[in-house]
Amino acid sequence: MTTSKEGVDWRSVCPISSALDVLGDKWTMLIIRDLVIHGTRTYSDFLESPEHISTNILALRLKLLTCLKLIERTNPDASARNNGFKLTESGAALRPVLEGLGRWAQTHLKEFHSDMVKIP
Amino acid sequence: MTTSKEGVDWRSVCPISSALDVLGDKWTMLIIRDLVIHGTRTYSDFLESPEHISTNILALRLKLLTCLKLIERTNPDASARNNGFKLTESGAALRPVLEGLGRWAQTHLKEFHSDMVKIP
Repeated sequence: MTTSKEGVDWRSVCPISSALDVLGDKWTMLIIRDLVIHGTRTYSDFLESPEHISTNILALRLKLLTCLKLIERTNPDASARNNGFKLTESGAALRPVLEGLGRWAQTHLKEFHSDMVKIP
Repeated sequence: MTTSKEGVDWRSVCPISSALDVLGDKWTMLIIRDLVIHGTRTYSDFLESPEHISTNILALRLKLLTCLKLIERTNPDASARNNGFKLTESGAALRPVLEGLGRWAQTHLKEFHSDMVKIP
């Protein structure tokens, strides 16, 4: 395992494993999802999503995603709490992965989670 | 939040969130990756992958993935330790998501993880 200066522990040289070293948790891809759907989100906006991310996890994830250039501040001079975040080209490139996860869940998890909605 | 009889806590009705309720950790998609690459893997095979999954996490993930019908035993009558696992149609349908994660990492994480290999 090697640790980058951004604080990521790279478990192996495999690209799939490396993607999961950054995105492999229950919250990071939901931040990306909210930015794909809404374009720009403030810190407070993220807290209002139905999954109820905690403030400390949100702050940690926004910091890492900014370090790794997946997201950026819309106005770097404003205060942290009121500032918006948007996807960079790198973050926006995850859209097909998100859509694939959503389509997969609709087809293969519906029998276990009957309340799931359809993506329009 | 609703909990299914399989033990999954569904945080919301969103399909992307639901996919992450099952797959959103650093290990589950690596089990799927190994089965996509090798077809069949025994419990011992999984332990030899370069990321070094721990035995307790492996056992928990294999149990959940079997309950949710993403994987199945190749010979249900053999002992647990020597038995092989393979992907079901549901698990195999994650291949495009895995490939998307790998391609994304190669393009967008290379600057942070210079040792990463190329997927052939």
